[in-house]
Formats: sequence, structure tokens, C-alpha cells
Amino acid sequence: MTKDRLIYLPLGGAGEIGMNAYVYGYGPEGNERLIVVDLGVTFPDMDTTPGIDLIMADTAWLQDNADRIEAIFITHGHEDHVGALGLLWPKLKAPVYARKFTAALATLKFEERGLPLDEIKVVKPRPDTIEAGPFDVQFVPVSHSIPESSALVIDTPAGRIVHTGDFKLDGTPIVGEPFNPDEWHAIANEGSGVKVLTCDSTNVFSPKPGRSEASLARPLAELIAEQRGMVVATTFASNVARLKTLAEAGTAAGRSVCMLGRAMKKMITAAVETGVLTDFPAIIPPEEAEALPRQNLMLIVTGSQGERRAASAQLSRGKYLGLEMKEGDTFLFSSKTIPGNERGVIRVMNAFSEMGVDVIDDRDGLYHVSGHANRPDLEAIHDLLRPSVLLPMHGEHMHLREHCRIGIEKGIASELATNGTMVDLTGERPRIVEYIEAGRTYLDGSVMIGAMDGVVRDRIRMALNGHVLATLILDEEDQPLGDAWVELKGLAERGKRGAALAEQIEAELNEYLGMAGAKVLRNDDKVEEAVKRIVRQVTMEEIGKKPEVTVVTSRLVAD
Amino acid sequence: MTKDRLIYLPLGGAGEIGMNAYVYGYGPEGNERLIVVDLGVTFPDMDTTPGIDLIMADTAWLQDNADRIEAIFITHGHEDHVGALGLLWPKLKAPVYARKFTAALATLKFEERGLPLDEIKVVKPRPDTIEAGPFDVQFVPVSHSIPESSALVIDTPAGRIVHTGDFKLDGTPIVGEPFNPDEWHAIANEGSGVKVLTCDSTNVFSPKPGRSEASLARPLAELIAEQRGMVVATTFASNVARLKTLAEAGTAAGRSVCMLGRAMKKMITAAVETGVLTDFPAIIPPEEAEALPRQNLMLIVTGSQGERRAASAQLSRGKYLGLEMKEGDTFLFSSKTIPGNERGVIRVMNAFSEMGVDVIDDRDGLYHVSGHANRPDLEAIHDLLRPSVLLPMHGEHMHLREHCRIGIEKGIASELATNGTMVDLTGERPRIVEYIEAGRTYLDGSVMIGAMDGVVRDRIRMALNGHVLATLILDEEDQPLGDAWVELKGLAERGKRGAALAEQIEAELNEYLGMAGAKVLRNDDKVEEAVKRIVRQVTMEEIGKKPEVTVVTSRLVAD
Repeated sequence: MTKDRLIYLPLGGAGEIGMNAYVYGYGPEGNERLIVVDLGVTFPDMDTTPGIDLIMADTAWLQDNADRIEAIFITHGHEDHVGALGLLWPKLKAPVYARKFTAALATLKFEERGLPLDEIKVVKPRPDTIEAGPFDVQFVPVSHSIPESSALVIDTPAGRIVHTGDFKLDGTPIVGEPFNPDEWHAIANEGSGVKVLTCDSTNVFSPKPGRSEASLARPLAELIAEQRGMVVATTFASNVARLKTLAEAGTAAGRSVCMLGRAMKKMITAAVETGVLTDFPAIIPPEEAEALPRQNLMLIVTGSQGERRAASAQLSRGKYLGLEMKEGDTFLFSSKTIPGNERGVIRVMNAFSEMGVDVIDDRDGLYHVSGHANRPDLEAIHDLLRPSVLLPMHGEHMHLREHCRIGIEKGIASELATNGTMVDLTGERPRIVEYIEAGRTYLDGSVMIGAMDGVVRDRIRMALNGHVLATLILDEEDQPLGDAWVELKGLAERGKRGAALAEQIEAELNEYLGMAGAKVLRNDDKVEEAVKRIVRQVTMEEIGKKPEVTVVTSRLVAD
Repeated sequence: MTKDRLIYLPLGGAGEIGMNAYVYGYGPEGNERLIVVDLGVTFPDMDTTPGIDLIMADTAWLQDNADRIEAIFITHGHEDHVGALGLLWPKLKAPVYARKFTAALATLKFEERGLPLDEIKVVKPRPDTIEAGPFDVQFVPVSHSIPESSALVIDTPAGRIVHTGDFKLDGTPIVGEPFNPDEWHAIANEGSGVKVLTCDSTNVFSPKPGRSEASLARPLAELIAEQRGMVVATTFASNVARLKTLAEAGTAAGRSVCMLGRAMKKMITAAVETGVLTDFPAIIPPEEAEALPRQNLMLIVTGSQGERRAASAQLSRGKYLGLEMKEGDTFLFSSKTIPGNERGVIRVMNAFSEMGVDVIDDRDGLYHVSGHANRPDLEAIHDLLRPSVLLPMHGEHMHLREHCRIGIEKGIASELATNGTMVDLTGERPRIVEYIEAGRTYLDGSVMIGAMDGVVRDRIRMALNGHVLATLILDEEDQPLGDAWVELKGLAERGKRGAALAEQIEAELNEYLGMAGAKVLRNDDKVEEAVKRIVRQVTMEEIGKKPEVTVVTSRLVAD
């Protein structure tokens, strides 16, 4: 009989910031009972994933072992933790545990896809405990930038794991529960203490202690009180605490507050309905806002990352829901720009500048705080929990590596395990035992495709190189019927000598077809190869590009 | 007779950071004699310009008035100032004036395209003066991040213009001329002083005075001395002063220095040949470097912006020219990441992290200084030159607007003129008199295309939506000959029910063709429209995407 073992297997989130998906297992080797922590998405970009709607972890391994999954736990309601739940659940079909607010957001995703709502179980925080096979799991409230974020205390026959989820040490988080050192102290000291700490690494390179959400109230109130035109502020839709701080600052300055953006309304509704948000200032609808003097109005809008369809970008292009920004108004980014989103944000800023709108961003650190623990905060948690093993997660490779380095300096056995790395946690030191194929799955329109399917590769190639379609018809005797025909897409129409590129290519193709013997023309592959070669050669000569080529050879067959 | 007037017309660089191209004119309205200052490029990105090689100002207006151009002046050798010279010169054909080092770089571009080298005139700095029609132009040395950068003093019958080019106030720039307040004082006080200041705006949002290049020597030397493995540093290839500081720091730490990257070698060669660079430490070739112990080696490489083909990215992927980074080595970014390049830089950093290489960037501001004047430096120049008119340039809209605001606060008539805005500078206050169509021209492969030609639009659409090719053959009687045929590119092969998408589309098309009347099938436009509609409809149903569609209808004609 094999001995039971405890394993950790990140499928997403370890080696990137996004699409979190972590697996723990306990039981006989190769037959461990499994739990999944979080099923998040990450977002596409034009450079690597044009046309893709959402990106999530490739869960092929989990699907192959679906019968071994006891439960899915969702730590909090951010898209990079819950965004793939509706898409992946049908392939995993295990009960989903989450706290009330997170469960409300998960329920929306289940409703969207017609999934059984009773599979989502609302959990109360520790000391309540969920038994999931060999795992006893408790939700521990932590402060973060969305309400009801939780760490998980996962007790196993091999010892206690603390999976932090996303967290910061905030004693005054405005909305949601403050960091509670007593609770963490208890967690560290129960039984034989903490064996494994799986820990957020996002801000490991931030050297100063993190600041509290509460520190923003005064600068924001002062800033808004100073403005004379309309004030428009943007932040992450899910940062309910920030929305409250912003709305309160607006109200205190004698402004009526109006919210624009679907995502924000969804969040506020879920937060109010689940009771996590109380005393939110009164909100007026856009129709009412329109009629108010500008100096009495504040908008809180989506689109802090410059997303083209969000409210802030819409306002930067003109009227949106009857509202329009004008010279003398102020636009505030109460947010940070996620690396990679700079161009979009700058585009919005310049569009506002053209309108004469003053743009204020977080340059001075006054109007935004991060939701993640900085390096000293991470160290405080290490010191508080004194784990035997540290598994850095929620970070790019460099974050995980730096976090490991800190752990090792403290004498904690720290393992850098990126997506697909299965770690055996049974013994005293973590041990890498296997590498699982851990790629990415894309939602493309309404279907899921693999990152390596070639679909996206072809899109990128067409975008870089353009696309030439060559069609030719061969008759019953394999002779060309009429001329070959070429269509260009995404290519310059004329070459350097001014002649039409399509005609140049066609001339060369027809010359070739006229001379090619029946032996070649009888063979589809040879024809295609020759046509591609000619198309690329002429295109390279004429315009200096090597295009993608699709050849359609139609053969007429005798009746 | 019309009165003579003085005009300013930015064609690039005003409303963006990049592709600088400014025009000044003097003479009768609509018939002014013209000079051009700088002809730069900007770089493409996947979001907006996939597949494009270089982007430059649309010079259609200049081409229409080519006979009026007296001269082209190049302020310095950065690509955003000289990069389009070789591409655009054949359309403008005016003599090109530049200082020795800049002229050497311009000459390389002329050689590349077989242009007449004697059109490039090497200029000495002020008091030497170039007469260009009604303009007397002097080159005034300024400090920047490339040697021999110059401001232009442009004297016209309507008064003196100072066009700063890119500059900072650096008294100890390591390579090149220090900022010389006496010279600027003289410029301000000759004749009736400065009428117009056309001024760099890049760092208008940086509130502290800029730091000198010389301030980097010590931190860099200390950092490099501390490292135990190989040290690899990257910076902008054209930052000759930085290359020298880095190489000296390496040499001082007992390391042999090797340079990787074509752009860097080109710069060093030009700088040495023109005499601007002296006392550069000895450089060893890669073959020699390979054999040295790692702790005795320093590489200086291209690719500070994460460019995929540059040396730093190559090293992050493995061996490059026989050299390879290893655990314990150090990689230093002595540079800042230009907004929009973050993803590429982060990719390189993480790849190094995976190798166990320590990456040091400019997080603490110790290892890089900017080449542009910060806000207090800009104000110092305003105060020194006391212009009547301020024309902010070299900035996005928000930079120009902020710079105008500063000018107006000082009582300077400041005009925000973006690309295409013609400003009459004859009177006391600047006056916008005309808007010229000022777009962008792309180098795509070997041909120039207009930004609005639709080529790039089609590429982006194919990248986002995929491309379906439908081919059908109609016989002499307008009846379908065989079945319609569909090829997919950049689209999922199978729809939600698991059936092959191409077959689904073909089935629908053939059903349609079988039922369509001869009246429809006789009409190419109607057939195309119907086929496109069916393809999009089936694709949307099956995979939720609305693809680009190209229809090729071949008609057999009776002999």
C-alpha cells in the first residue's frame, strides 16, 4: 500500500499575476483526494492573444481527475480568482464554497451559464469548518481591495496549510473586516502550528509597509472639495471600500453622486444585498445628474485601466448616457495602472486633456493604496505564522523568486513552484515530484480553445504579414481553367514600381501555371507549394513583405 | 501685395512623443519660404499598427510645397528626430544641415537608400550661421542623452526663434557639451531678444530639477564592484555618455567590457570617428569574452525596452553570440521603460529570473537619469530667455497643455499647437490661421502606406475576428458548379456542438446556392453579400464570432 501524501499543484497564478488556480491533494500517491482553490481568469492583449475574450488555466489534468475533486473554494470575488468559475465548473462539477458576497458574485456567473445554483455553498468564516474529504477548511477574513476576502486554513492529516489568498494588513479597511492579529496568532498556535504557508507575492518588491484604505479619505475629500467643475473619479469596480470613500468625499463636498458602468453597479448591488456594504451615500441616476450644475456633481465611473468600452473611455470620446466632460472639470484616477495597460490609460488622459479637463492620477500616492501586502507586511505574516514551508504564489517568476529569497533568509524551507509543478509537502521539506502540462485555455467568442491550437498564432501572423488568397481552377485534364485569381487583405495595394500587387502576382502565377507540367498540376500539394512560393516571392520583391498565403485549388471533375 | 508673415507648423511631435517634424515659414502668405526641423520616426505597436516597420509624419503638405523648402535641420541623432530622413528626403530634396556626429548618423541613412551624400552639410555650432532663405540658423550645443544635441537659434525678419530640440540642463554630461548659461544669456540679450521659444515638454510633469549624467558614475561603479557573477547592463544604444559611464565602471571593477548589439556598435563607431567620444575603455569581442571568468566580464547590450530581437531579449532566451547568462549573474537596466513597453521588459525580467539572474532596474532612480529638462529646468529656460511667445512641443497633448499653463502663469503668450496647426507668429500674439491635414505615414516592408489606407485596419480586423474565405464557381448559366468551399484562418475549427465549423458553413452556403434564383446568382454583388451574411451568421451561431469574410466567385464563361 502506498503511503498517503500531501501535494500542492498550482495550475495558474504561480509565475504570473492572474488566472489563479491552485490544487491541494491528500491521499495515496496518484490517487489523492483534491481540492481546488480559486478559478480565475486573466485578460488578453493584442500582442499575444488578439481576439480572445478571456484566458484561464488549462485544467486538463483536473478534468482527468474530476472524480477526485472534493470541493472548489473561492477566496474572494476578483475576476482573477473567480472569473473562470462559470466556464470551468461544467468540466469539474464539484461543490463551490465561498463567503456570502463572493458567493453572490459566483452565483451571477452560474446564472449566466445556466448552471445549478445549489452547487454554490455559502460559508461563514472560521470557526465554521468545511469538511472536504481529508481536508478541513476554514475561511479567515483578511483585508484586501474587495469585501469578504479570505485566507484559507486547510487542515490535513499531514499538517496545517495557510493559503493567504490576496491580502494586506489593514486595520481600517473602510469596508470589510480589519486585519486581526489575534486570530492569526491563534491560527499559528493551534495544534502543531502552521506547516505550509502559501502566500501572496504581488508586492514583494514594495519596500515600505502598506498603507490603510482609511488613509485616503482625507486627501480625497480635500481634493474633491477644491474642484470647481464636475468631478469624475474612476477606480476598480470591485473596490467597494474605495467607491464608498469616493462617494462620501463627494457628498461631503456638497455633490450628488452618480455611478456609471455596469460592473460597478453589479458590485454595489451585490455588496448591498449581501449586507457587506451599509451607509453608502445616496446615488442619483444619470438622467437626474444631467440636470444638475456641474459643481454639484460627482461621477464615479468604470475604466481605470483605460478599457475602450468602459465609462471613462466613453466619456473621453464624448457624451455618455447624456453626460459629457467639459473644460474646467476634473478626472481622477483613484487607481494604479496595471503594467501593460499604460497605452490605454494615456490615451484616455490625452483625450481629456484635449477637452480641457484636468486629469489627476496617483503620481503622488495620495489617492490610491494597493490591496496587497508589501514586503514588510509579508515578513510580518511569516513571523506571525512561523511556517515550516513557504510556497510563494500570486506573482510573476521574479516575485516568487524574491519571496523565496526572503523565506530562505528566515530559515523557512521555501520552494519556487510555478504553474504545473507538483510539490510533495508530506515530509519536512517540500519536494518537487512531477511536472504537469499546465498551459492556458482561451475563451474565444463562445468556444474554448487551447493556447497551442494555432488559432491565435494564425491571427498574429495575419496581423503582422497580411493575407493573400490565391484561387485557381483546374479542369478535368488538370489544366488551368481561366486565370488564377488573387485577393489581398491587409497588404499594400501597390508595389514600389507603382503597379498593382495583385496583378503582378497573378501574372507570375499564370505564367507558372501555363508552363507547369500535368505531373505537377495533378498534385494538390505541389500546386499549393508552388503557388505559395510565387506569391511570397513576388510580394517580397514588390512590397518587402512575406504574407500568409491561402491557396484554394478547385478541380472540375467529369460528370 | 501681401504682407510677409512668420509661421510655425508642427507635422509630428506636437501631441505625441515621437516622429518630430516641425516647419517654419517666412514670406508672403501661402508662399512662405520654409525650413524643416527634424524628420523623425515613431515605433509601431501591435494594438494599433501591427506589421508596420516605422511610423513617420505625413508630409503631403510639405511635398506639395517642396519647391519652397530652403533646408532641413536635424537637431540630434535620435531616431525620433532623424529616423525618417532617408525615407522622406527623396520627396523633399532640400539640403540637410546637422552637426558632425548627427551628420554621420544621417549619412548612414542616406547610404542605406542610395541618396546623394553631398546633400548632408556638416555644421559647426554658433556663432557659425546657415543662411536658408529668410532664415539665419545657428546650432547651439545643449546637453541631452546623445552627443552633439543642439537647439536652433532661428533669426527671421519677424524676430528670433529658439527651437530647443531635446535638452536638459546638465553641467557635467560626461560626453558632449555641458549646459552653458552664458551662451543662453547672450542669445536672450542679442538684438531685441527672443520672440518665440519652441520648447521640449517631455518632462513637464517631473517636479524636481533634473539630475546630471555624472551623478550615475558612483552608484554604477559601486553596484558593479559588488557583483560576483557576470554583469550585463543595458541602456539606449545612442546614450553614448551612459555607455562610457558603464564601461568605465566595469573597467574600474576589473572587468573586461564587451558590447553586444548592432545599434550600439554603430553609435560608438560614429561617436569615435567624429571625435565626440574619446578615452572610451577598451572593448573585447564576444569570442574573447566567452573565454573569460564570469566575474571578470561585463557586457553592455542593446534592448533596454525589451525589444524581442535585441541582445537583452536574446540573452533572456539563451545563448547569444556564444555568451549565456547563468545563476548568480546580474542584469542591470540603466534605463527607464517607455510607456507601452512594460510587457516586453517584464517578459525579459522574468526570463532572467528563471535563469537565476538578479535583475536590477531603475526603481530607486540610482542607475538612470532622464535626458529631458524637468519642470524647474523648463522654468529656468523660460526665465533665462524671456520669450514673448511659448510654443510647447515634444509632448503628448497633456504635456503641451501643462507646459502652456506654466507659460501663461508667467505672462508668456503660450499656444497649444498640435500637429497640423499652422500658427502665425508675426504679431505680438500667436494666432492659429489654418489646420493642415497632418496624419501618419507608415513604412510597411519596403513601401510607404497612409495610416488611413485601410491596410492596417484590415490586419487588426483579421487579428480580432479571424478570416473566412469562401470560394464558389458558377457556370455559364450562372448555376453553382460543384460545392462552395470554405477555408478558415485564425478561427476555432469546431463549434459548440463539436461539428466542424467549415462544414457547417459550407452546408448552409450550398443550401442557399441551390435555392437562390438565377437573378441573384447573376449578380456578383448580391452573391457576395449573401455569402458574407451566411458565413457570419453560421460562425456567430457556432463559435460566437463575426469573422472577416472574403468571397471569391469564379464564373466560367463559354469559350
